[in-house]
Amino acid sequence: MEKYIIGIDLGGTNIKAGLVKVEDGTIVDSFSIKTESEKGSSNTFDRIANFVDDIIKKEKLTKKDILGLGMGIPGPVLNNEIVSFFANFPWEDNLNVAEELKKRTGLEVKLDNDVNVITLGEAWTGAAQGYKNVLGIALGTGIGGGLVVNGHLFGGTSGGAGEIGHIKIEENGKLCGCGQKGCWEAYASATGLEREATSRLRVNKNNLVWKKIEGDITKLEAKHIFDAAKEGDKFALELVDYETRYVALGLSTVLNVMNPEIVVIGGGVSLAGDILFDGIKEKIKENTLIPILNGLKDIVPAKLGNDAGIVGAAALILDK
Amino acid sequence: MEKYIIGIDLGGTNIKAGLVKVEDGTIVDSFSIKTESEKGSSNTFDRIANFVDDIIKKEKLTKKDILGLGMGIPGPVLNNEIVSFFANFPWEDNLNVAEELKKRTGLEVKLDNDVNVITLGEAWTGAAQGYKNVLGIALGTGIGGGLVVNGHLFGGTSGGAGEIGHIKIEENGKLCGCGQKGCWEAYASATGLEREATSRLRVNKNNLVWKKIEGDITKLEAKHIFDAAKEGDKFALELVDYETRYVALGLSTVLNVMNPEIVVIGGGVSLAGDILFDGIKEKIKENTLIPILNGLKDIVPAKLGNDAGIVGAAALILDK
Repeated sequence: MEKYIIGIDLGGTNIKAGLVKVEDGTIVDSFSIKTESEKGSSNTFDRIANFVDDIIKKEKLTKKDILGLGMGIPGPVLNNEIVSFFANFPWEDNLNVAEELKKRTGLEVKLDNDVNVITLGEAWTGAAQGYKNVLGIALGTGIGGGLVVNGHLFGGTSGGAGEIGHIKIEENGKLCGCGQKGCWEAYASATGLEREATSRLRVNKNNLVWKKIEGDITKLEAKHIFDAAKEGDKFALELVDYETRYVALGLSTVLNVMNPEIVVIGGGVSLAGDILFDGIKEKIKENTLIPILNGLKDIVPAKLGNDAGIVGAAALILDK
Repeated sequence: MEKYIIGIDLGGTNIKAGLVKVEDGTIVDSFSIKTESEKGSSNTFDRIANFVDDIIKKEKLTKKDILGLGMGIPGPVLNNEIVSFFANFPWEDNLNVAEELKKRTGLEVKLDNDVNVITLGEAWTGAAQGYKNVLGIALGTGIGGGLVVNGHLFGGTSGGAGEIGHIKIEENGKLCGCGQKGCWEAYASATGLEREATSRLRVNKNNLVWKKIEGDITKLEAKHIFDAAKEGDKFALELVDYETRYVALGLSTVLNVMNPEIVVIGGGVSLAGDILFDGIKEKIKENTLIPILNGLKDIVPAKLGNDAGIVGAAALILDK
């Protein structure tokens, strides 16, 4: 008898949910509902419970066919249950989300933060399939990390393990959104790259990036820089060099601590492709110890894309 | 029937070995023999096997009373068996030490690097007893680290996890003994502190440190600096501030990655006591994320001292 898990990706705007086969992690059916967090947590949880009932009915299943419900949320999670605070939702602090959803669905419920979930998804059926020690990185507006250790997700003592965006790569360095200084993500995230580009564009406008944004700095995105670099623009190439240098610097530090077998990079910046990955692979050699480099099989782009949140959330239920 | 494990601490000069009770990790009997690595690995392994026979006879035991033999060695270990290279011994590369000792003793043999072993020892019967997520730090000539994750030692993919001395705290920073630049241990190890003191002593000789070393810079040790600071010497206090600032900076980065419950610091520098620990505890607040600080119960000095190498080596056999 085929078994399934409900995987849910709780985002600021949308909740993506799917029915995932235990056998091979494929998504049998999925849909998306609005989060509407402003209506309160109960309202959202009720609608998630309705979704669970709907999908079970639609697929002609019973609750017995469902092993559980896994959910990824933006923020640190304690004991796969409790969210100490929702950064962007007007919800209660220290909310036991697992309990609330268990009450409504009768299912086993496990929660984790979104980057942990994505990493677990990539380890189950994605770019890190078959690897036991995986570092997952979300390289986007910020930098998030997920750690799979000996085949299991490692959340640390208070759900904060893998908060690699806030490792310090320079004492008293650039100000970070978190309020501290010198955090890795203040340099190497999309935002970090855009900051550096904005600064350089104030003194150099004779370049393809400036052309692409039509002289409107508010339009600048990391993608403009990578696109211009791929067309050979020197100004953009130097910015890509900055980006890969700082990604590599922070990554080396995490490698020296964790010694993973594979690194999977997702998030907006990862879409830049070879121009990013080749630079990172070359530059980590300067700052990573040889035995640790020897243990690292590869640094690869994430494979599951938007599905990672659903597949990884489902994988939480299998991760004992 | 009481069960025992042989714990061995293989050092450059001496091999310390002990018979450890499985029940409570106490050392029943121990002794020390010369390593004499220059006579070759076989010679040393033969003498270890003789030691095992001797101690079993002396304690009126049989091999059946011994669960196994654990050993800590200086350097990274693969699969608890193989040492890729001995930095200071003229021994073969990629030596399967576990196999060699198993052949000679008939016991199950497990190896790990010395800082991992010490961390496991502190987690078994020392300062981190009862904690599941432990960061062990050896703060001495260099900086080494050991990670206990979910109650088990985590060595990473190629035995390099916890090589925290070589995380980069400054891009293109101070030259490290490893040949790379900006490594944490180039700043915050005893050597790092002595480097900084030496540099400052060239322009300031009117201080208690200079007095303590009687104007002979070759005598300088970290201890002189801590001793002078405890007597209120301003020059020394500023150096202690430097030391705690840099210990805290690198430690914050490791905390943000691993989110441990407790940090145990051993090694020569840790003997400085409160003046060191108070400074570190205060300064990590600047660079560590709040949920991770909240998860951290304490930062404590190692408790087992020289016994940690024997007790921790024995604990390897219990760490499945």
